Parts: sequence; C-alpha cells; structure tokens
Amino acid sequence: MKVDTVIVGSGSAGLSALREVRRYTEDFLLINDGHWGTTCAAVGCMPSKALIEAANAFHRRLDLNEFGISGADGLRADIPAVLRRVRKMRDDFVKGPKSMPDKLGDRAISGRARLLGPDRIEVNGDEIEARAIILAPGSSPVVPGPWEKFGDRILTTDTLFEQTDLPPRVAVVGMGAIGVEMAQALARLGLNVAGFDAADEVAGIDDARVLNAFRPQIEAEMTLALGAPADLEEAGASIRVTGHSSSFDADVVLAAMGRRPNVDDLGLETLGVALDDAGLPEVNPVTLRIGDLPVFLAGDANGYRPLLHEAADGGHIAARMAAPEAPEGGLCRRTPLTIVFSAPQVARVGLPLSDMGDHDVVSGCVDFSTQGRARMAQTAAGVLRVHADRETGRLLGAEMCVPSAEHLSHLLALAIEQEMTVDDILAMPFYHPVLEEGLRSALRDLAKQVPAKGGSDLSRCKELGHDALE
Amino acid sequence: MKVDTVIVGSGSAGLSALREVRRYTEDFLLINDGHWGTTCAAVGCMPSKALIEAANAFHRRLDLNEFGISGADGLRADIPAVLRRVRKMRDDFVKGPKSMPDKLGDRAISGRARLLGPDRIEVNGDEIEARAIILAPGSSPVVPGPWEKFGDRILTTDTLFEQTDLPPRVAVVGMGAIGVEMAQALARLGLNVAGFDAADEVAGIDDARVLNAFRPQIEAEMTLALGAPADLEEAGASIRVTGHSSSFDADVVLAAMGRRPNVDDLGLETLGVALDDAGLPEVNPVTLRIGDLPVFLAGDANGYRPLLHEAADGGHIAARMAAPEAPEGGLCRRTPLTIVFSAPQVARVGLPLSDMGDHDVVSGCVDFSTQGRARMAQTAAGVLRVHADRETGRLLGAEMCVPSAEHLSHLLALAIEQEMTVDDILAMPFYHPVLEEGLRSALRDLAKQVPAKGGSDLSRCKELGHDALE
Repeated sequence: MKVDTVIVGSGSAGLSALREVRRYTEDFLLINDGHWGTTCAAVGCMPSKALIEAANAFHRRLDLNEFGISGADGLRADIPAVLRRVRKMRDDFVKGPKSMPDKLGDRAISGRARLLGPDRIEVNGDEIEARAIILAPGSSPVVPGPWEKFGDRILTTDTLFEQTDLPPRVAVVGMGAIGVEMAQALARLGLNVAGFDAADEVAGIDDARVLNAFRPQIEAEMTLALGAPADLEEAGASIRVTGHSSSFDADVVLAAMGRRPNVDDLGLETLGVALDDAGLPEVNPVTLRIGDLPVFLAGDANGYRPLLHEAADGGHIAARMAAPEAPEGGLCRRTPLTIVFSAPQVARVGLPLSDMGDHDVVSGCVDFSTQGRARMAQTAAGVLRVHADRETGRLLGAEMCVPSAEHLSHLLALAIEQEMTVDDILAMPFYHPVLEEGLRSALRDLAKQVPAKGGSDLSRCKELGHDALE
Repeated sequence: MKVDTVIVGSGSAGLSALREVRRYTEDFLLINDGHWGTTCAAVGCMPSKALIEAANAFHRRLDLNEFGISGADGLRADIPAVLRRVRKMRDDFVKGPKSMPDKLGDRAISGRARLLGPDRIEVNGDEIEARAIILAPGSSPVVPGPWEKFGDRILTTDTLFEQTDLPPRVAVVGMGAIGVEMAQALARLGLNVAGFDAADEVAGIDDARVLNAFRPQIEAEMTLALGAPADLEEAGASIRVTGHSSSFDADVVLAAMGRRPNVDDLGLETLGVALDDAGLPEVNPVTLRIGDLPVFLAGDANGYRPLLHEAADGGHIAARMAAPEAPEGGLCRRTPLTIVFSAPQVARVGLPLSDMGDHDVVSGCVDFSTQGRARMAQTAAGVLRVHADRETGRLLGAEMCVPSAEHLSHLLALAIEQEMTVDDILAMPFYHPVLEEGLRSALRDLAKQVPAKGGSDLSRCKELGHDALE
C-alpha cells in the first residue's frame, strides 16, 4: 500500500496535523492506537479543570461567613456526584475525536504503528509506503515499576477520573503542575491529602520569591513533604508513603511524576539517526523534522513543551513542513506560557528568570496579599514578578502566583510576543478596581529601574484646539 | 493670600493632580468641600464591588447541586451583615484621602471654593490669588426634584451603602452601568428587584447583538421595564413605580440615572468663557485647559469619561499642563475602556461600533454559551464581537457580555492601544482551557475577512539546524 502522508496518533497534535495535511492531499492515513480521544479532552486539561471548578466552588464556603452568608456548615461534597459530572463533561469533550474513524472511513486505522524506515510503516501486519510520515504518538503517565504490586491503589490521571468514589486518604507523589492541581482539588473536596516530591520546588515554579509565596498557600491545605523521593510500603490496609522526614498512610496514591513519550515500540531506531537515552531523536523545534528525513515528530512525544497549545502548533508546523512544496525555514514558536490552575494560580511567561543570564535584568514585584480588588473577593494572596532588560526596558518574562494568573499571564504574553517595553504596556488603560492594577504596580516598580521617560505613562500629542470633550 | 497652584477637590482627579503639582511646587492649596474621600473609595467602585462579590458568592449556590455539592438550600444572605462588611472594607479604602488634612496641615482647607476670576478663588470668606487653578470638584447622583417628597425611601449610591438593612422590594431607576450592577447584586442577595429605564439599552451597551445576548440574562433575575421614563407615586406604604407597560410596588427606589458635575456654585461664569446648557465650559481633552486660561477642569466634573482611571489621568494631565514651564501640546488619552461588573460582565474597548462610520469595518463574533472553560465553571453565556478595518486588519474596537470580560477587555485594550492588527494578536499563545480561547475564536472569525496571511498564526523563521529541542 502506498499513500502520500501517514499521521500516527489522533491526539491534539495529530488532529492539528490532519487539518493541515488535508490542505495539500486527501491521500493520507490516520493511524491511532487505543482510544480515539486526545489526552487533553480524555484524561488531561478538561476533566482536571472540571474537577477543580467543583473543588473551588465547595472551598468557597469558607469565605461565606465573612461575606455575610450563613449556613455554609451544611454544605457537603458528594464525591461520586462530583466525579459523575466530571465524566459527563469529559464525554462531551471527547465526542469530536471519537467520531474520527466514522468520518474518515478506511483512511482511519485502529492499531499500533511501527516504523520500518524513513518512508515505510507497518500497522496490523500491513506495510505502508509514504512520502511523508508525521508521528504524534503522545505520552503516558510515569509509574515506577516496583509500584505495580500495589495494584489499582496506584492511580494516574488515566484512571483518577474513572473512579466512582474516592477513599478518604490520598497521597500525591509528584508536585509539578498536575500533582499540585489534583492534590489541592482533592483536599478542597474534603479528602485528607499529602503531597510528596523529590525536589524542593512545587508547581514547576522557577523564581524563589514566587515559590516562597506559593508554598505556604498549598501547605495550609495539605501535608507537604518535599526534597526526598517518596518511598511506598504496605502498612496494614494502607500504603505508607514516606518522604522527607514524614510519612503518611494513604488509601490510594496518585502518581503525578510526569509523562513519558510513547516511543517504545515506534521503530525510531530504523530511521538511521542517533537516539538519546530516552530513545528520542533530535528534532528541530521550528520544523519538527527528524534529521533531513521526511519524518516529523510532534506533540508531547517530542518532549518539547508538552502542553495542548504547543501540541496543536506542533502538528500544524509538522504538516506544513511535510507538504510537497514546503518553503525553506520553519515556523516560529510562540512566547512560552505555562499556567497551573491551583489557588492562587501559578503562571510563567517568556524566559524563566534562571535562563536570563544573557541579559542585564531588572525586576518589578507586587504583593497581591493587599491588592484591593482581590481583598474584596477574599482571594488576596501571592506575588507577581516581571523582568526586563535594563538598557532597553524590553520585557523578558514574568512569573506569578496570584488570583487569575491565567488572565494576567495572557496580557503579559501578548506584550512579550510583540517585544514591548515596560513603557509600551504602561500606556494601556488599567480599569478600576481590577487585578490588572496589581500587575501595573509591578510594571511601575520595573519602570523606575529603566531609563526614564519623564514620569508619565501618557505619550505627548498635539493639542486639539478648544473642541468640547467628546 | 497668594499661592502658586490651587487644587479644588480631593477626589481621584484632585489627588492625582496633587502628586504632579508637588513635582514643581510646595506652594499649593488643596481645597475640599465635604468628606475627604474619593467618590470611588467612598460611594463608587469600591463599596459597589464589595457588594457584588458577596452577591455573586451567594448566587453561586444555584450551581452547587450541578457540581455535586449538597446543602445549598440552607444558605442565607444576612443583609445587615453583608452591608456591614461593605462598610468595613470601604472605611479601609478611604483611610488615605481622609488623612489628607492632617498630612498637609494648613495647605489643606475644608470649605466650598468659588472662582472670582481666572486667577482668584474664594473659600470660607478668604480670597486667594493663584498662578494656576485646577478644578476637580467631582459629581453627584442625579435625583429628580419631584422625588424629594418620598424622603429617605429614595436611595442613591451616596446613601445605599449607609443602610443597615434593606427592605424586600427595590426599584432601580436607570439601567446604566451602576443601575445594572446594583440591581443585579441586590436581586442576587434575595431581594425582589425591578429595573426601569427610559431608553431601551442596558449597561450602556452600544452593539445590538451584544445587547440582545445580555438583556435576557438580566431579565432572568429581575423584572425589567425599558423604553419609557419611570413614574413614581405613593401607593399605601409603597412607592408605585410605573414604566413601560408595567408597574412595581417598591419599598425603596434606587436612583441610578447618572451623575451631574458639581459646578453649580463654582463661579465658572466669572472666567469670561462661554458655558453650555449644563453650565460647563469647553475643555481640551489632552490639556484639560479652559480656553487659554490658567484654569483646568479635571475628573468627573468635566463630563469626559467619568471613570476612575480617566479621572486619575485627567488630574495628571491638568497638573502637568499647569506647571510653570509646561511643554507645548498635551498628553494623549488612552484607548477607551468601560467595564460593567455584572454577570456576565459587559465591556467595551476602543471605538463603539456605532462610531466606526469612517472605516470599512469587518467583525468577528463568538458565542460564549458553548465555550469549553466557561461550561466547566457553569458560567457559559454571552457573546463577544471584535471589529477591524477591512483593508489593514487593524483592530478598532470590541464589545462583549461574557464571563471575565474585565480580563478579556484588558487584553484587547493593549492590542488596540498598540495599534495591532488581528494577525498580531493571533500570534500570541492561547493556553488551554481558558476563556481567552473564546476571544481567539472571534479573532479567527475576523481574520478570515481581512487580506490573507496564509492560514497560519505563526510567523516564518529561519531553520535552526538540527539542535535538540529545549
């Protein structure tokens, strides 16, 4: 069998690639192993955010008395009902990818693909020759081999949302973005949660000042044991999880130690290029091409920014570069942006502070624990730091743990993507009372440290004559 | 008595002017009539938002069952407690302005100022000669004269937050920004609310499609009578409010028909310039100067964008232009931005659609009633429209009634302030799952209608060689 383009994987990257491939050919095959749904919709962003929304709605009861609302003591989180809603929403979000085989007919194949070389691939015993191959096999949660003996008491995000109920004591091992989000959500739903991590960081925070503001917020809601690998052992009916100088008896353990590219049986070794210790070839981030081959590796599987919006860009880039008359060069990646949907939310935009070594960096900071609008909403907490080049005032990056970081980080992402200076962003209107005024305080703190513009955010303009005001 | 600069009014504009005046002189007087607090902190933005936060926290109970949380029926809003918290927060926010007389000593004067001419002003019987005069006397709620007979059953935002309790039936007359915010907040706290307006619009919405999406949302929470002036009459112990084809028996009536500049006894007629029917002189919006006089009119009192952030800019501009060696020209005003803190929130950025007559306009639209992230939070509702110039793709304005409009509108305000095209903003990262993805849908809808860039948000860039991914 011979086709123009083969796409392996029907996740976010594969489906994004498909959309672009169909601009140049209908002679394609989409091969997928397992369920026809994206990681995001099935076991990632969507069910996790549905769970977080329920958890935050329940947690809000603790503020009600301060607002002047009574009766909060009578509220109960019904875990089976919460999980049922999560699955109901999830089922709705996966409908699109699930219908792919029906829509594509015999151009969609269910089965595990394996490369035979740079222009040949095998699936279900059939050999396919292709002009271009786009690999987007995705990733899977890491679970240490020795944990297998604990059976279904070890959960991952693949199985967490399938539970019909949850026991009262949950250990979460791995306090990165996903670990923090899930640990806090389960704690807010009334479960007894302990979080463990081998490192001292949580939520992937790079800036020590942001980490110092965030850690006590999380520690107020759960036991945290950071700085040593978690050790698991049987203890009666429990799993005893031992981390840095403390242990916790759990009913179940959520493994949140990251995800691994699904490349084990992909046949990458047949491509004739060097593979690293993880079995991955070098991939150019602006073309996603492997070496000079007509083979592309996109999405979580290439290990580059494993986030939905980057996977979608990756599929898009790979397919554009796989086109028969692809132009020279590649497509630029966007300003880096990561968001953790904790409370307060964590976000980073642009370069991490620890990677700004090439610049003479000046920093602005604001403490959100006294921010006016946040105080009115009973959500005041956290800090936001923003960094610029001292000489030019150009914004380089920001990191924060503040309420609505998801929104403030998008504003900063636009500014950084457009290579703005701190004066450029300060020229915009900041309404009142809004959280963006907190960001402005950090920007003003920064502006004081770059060459002066005269103390006004407003630019000079010609007098208009004595027209009446609008 | 002779001083360099006199400032009249210690509100947001006056205090902003004071900061700038002190850059060039300490020979100033700050004259204030009545309480030493800004409209914003005392009776405006701050207490209203504190009330809205409590109301929304209580209203959230209606979503709890869907989330899987039981017991919401037992929640009660204790109106006196809600109002006590509002005043407690308010008292904290007005502390700064209230301490002005102590901080400034005899350079702060309590009393009503009256101009005697372009360089003279009178207060408490004393005549003061000044090189420059900055007027920022603020504004007051409009209450029709005939309503006086209803006594303290007519409330305004000056008195609403002073109430220790509220009766069960409230009519709100005037469905602009403040009317809609307060009517919805009181309805959400369990009061029986009816809203009246002489016009057919609500919340100051200009775009008919946005209005059509917003009106049913508000109408679901209260009785609305639009399109005819409200008529008030005694009806037993009630005030009967009659509007367009319906009437409502209220215990109290909140007058929310706008605010009037406090210029009645200011002596503007002594300046020798023409005054309009409202008694206001022409004022240049980029200098805030009256005619060629050394007299400036800033803040709500000049009737130009009566919003805190514009008042602060106005005070800043007036004081910079009042400086002894002020440069030629003025200071540009920022991109217009208005936000109504209703649910869903309403916001407008840039030109209103009805004012875009000079442009060949193309529009993008998105329906938030199916937006993924909003669905997970049980807040999906509304529409967002964004407009650009057809030939250049440059963004001109946007209007919306959507969840978190306060944040999406700031993102658009930055884009419009920086004169971006729709392609410029689409180059930024949009995380997943976030409300900003809804905005992106509207932008993509718009991008299809302007000259094509090749179907990719990503810009071309040089291939990097075969470096490994970061």
